[in-house]
Amino acid sequence: MTTTPVRPQILAFDIFGTVVDWHGSIAREVEALGLLTSPGAAASMTPADFARAWRAGYRPAMDRVMSGELGWTRIDDLHRMILDELLDRHGLALDEVGRAHLNRAWHRLAPWPDSVEGLSRLKRGYTLCTLSNGNLGLLANMAKHAGLPWDLILSAEVFRAYKPHPDTYLGVAEVFEVAPEEVMLVAAHQDDLDAARRCGLKTAYIERPHEFGEDAPNAVEGSPDNDLHCTSLIDLADRLGA
Amino acid sequence: MTTTPVRPQILAFDIFGTVVDWHGSIAREVEALGLLTSPGAAASMTPADFARAWRAGYRPAMDRVMSGELGWTRIDDLHRMILDELLDRHGLALDEVGRAHLNRAWHRLAPWPDSVEGLSRLKRGYTLCTLSNGNLGLLANMAKHAGLPWDLILSAEVFRAYKPHPDTYLGVAEVFEVAPEEVMLVAAHQDDLDAARRCGLKTAYIERPHEFGEDAPNAVEGSPDNDLHCTSLIDLADRLGA
Repeated sequence: MTTTPVRPQILAFDIFGTVVDWHGSIAREVEALGLLTSPGAAASMTPADFARAWRAGYRPAMDRVMSGELGWTRIDDLHRMILDELLDRHGLALDEVGRAHLNRAWHRLAPWPDSVEGLSRLKRGYTLCTLSNGNLGLLANMAKHAGLPWDLILSAEVFRAYKPHPDTYLGVAEVFEVAPEEVMLVAAHQDDLDAARRCGLKTAYIERPHEFGEDAPNAVEGSPDNDLHCTSLIDLADRLGA
Repeated sequence: MTTTPVRPQILAFDIFGTVVDWHGSIAREVEALGLLTSPGAAASMTPADFARAWRAGYRPAMDRVMSGELGWTRIDDLHRMILDELLDRHGLALDEVGRAHLNRAWHRLAPWPDSVEGLSRLKRGYTLCTLSNGNLGLLANMAKHAGLPWDLILSAEVFRAYKPHPDTYLGVAEVFEVAPEEVMLVAAHQDDLDAARRCGLKTAYIERPHEFGEDAPNAVEGSPDNDLHCTSLIDLADRLGA
């Protein structure tokens, strides 16, 4: 018996690393601030290291929320907690205005070179939404800054749960009143895609070999369980006939 | 002592009646369906009457949710409850497919002639969001259909409260992490604007004399308490220098 593939109606996009280059953007802002060349700074830390260290605090911080140790806390506030801890740990001086500005760098992340063209093509044939752990204000400011043409911005903030909680993936289907298999999650992270598939969503893996920096390439095999494996969002548009 | 006017950063728009012409759109779909010319239909009801009767059930239905009589219920489902009751009351025959299609007419509402141009100009200088009692899926489908260029779609569905509950107006400020006076509500309804002002938001009244149909013009004086009184969204763009 063969099954007819269901064409997805809704494409839901992971954001950090999949659509925007958080590592390069954060490293550039840290470099521009001269943060690591201030007196007392650890000599061995590069802006690329700093960006990775900041991001490394992200999953543990969300886990503290999902375990109930912290009440519901937006990514903006989690980013700030991690930043403060990171600055303190490395003896880096930055005043309140500087910290607030740097924390908002996550609202100004640059898209990968293929993102705007790929999304603009896909938007003609599909409904495009975000499904990100980033908060609504962050995602809206990012979209305005980067020109990302979402039909709807959905966030963990709407579902009061962080990915990979099933409420987030199933929440997309419920918002649009479609079956889970009519939603395709697009992401550069296999664990996100695996969790979506367990909820019945379709999955498209996007290769982002330099998500963690040019100096730290990561594997981009993906899993054979994914419905699509793409090299970019333009490739995804080609594969989906958009 | 004079106070310096705060320029709003965020413009939050009421949707039904302010940005889109629900009455004309619904009346046209009812007309096209031939619903009122079916055997047994009340001879005296026009498509314009039908649209007004459907809309008249909207506030009482939301009140049942906000009183706790009903659990949280989306507008799509409230619209359907009202529609079913209206069809039964008037002895109008419509099968399940027809009812589902007609109920989705609220996702296909046409913008007023000035809306897309006004919003497109305003978007260059302000962050534009919806603040509607319509659900997220409805608002996203409407925006895609009508070409409404929102930076963010916010809905009662996000705040789990219907306007005029304060959580909705204050929720916009919280999402964007701004003070309430940095948000301006744009609406054609004085009660909505009054509730927003009580929460500290700025207010812009938009004249929509034919919200309830060409055959039922309504007063458009607004209140002198509004910060702005505009004849259209293009007029609002002019007034805000966008």
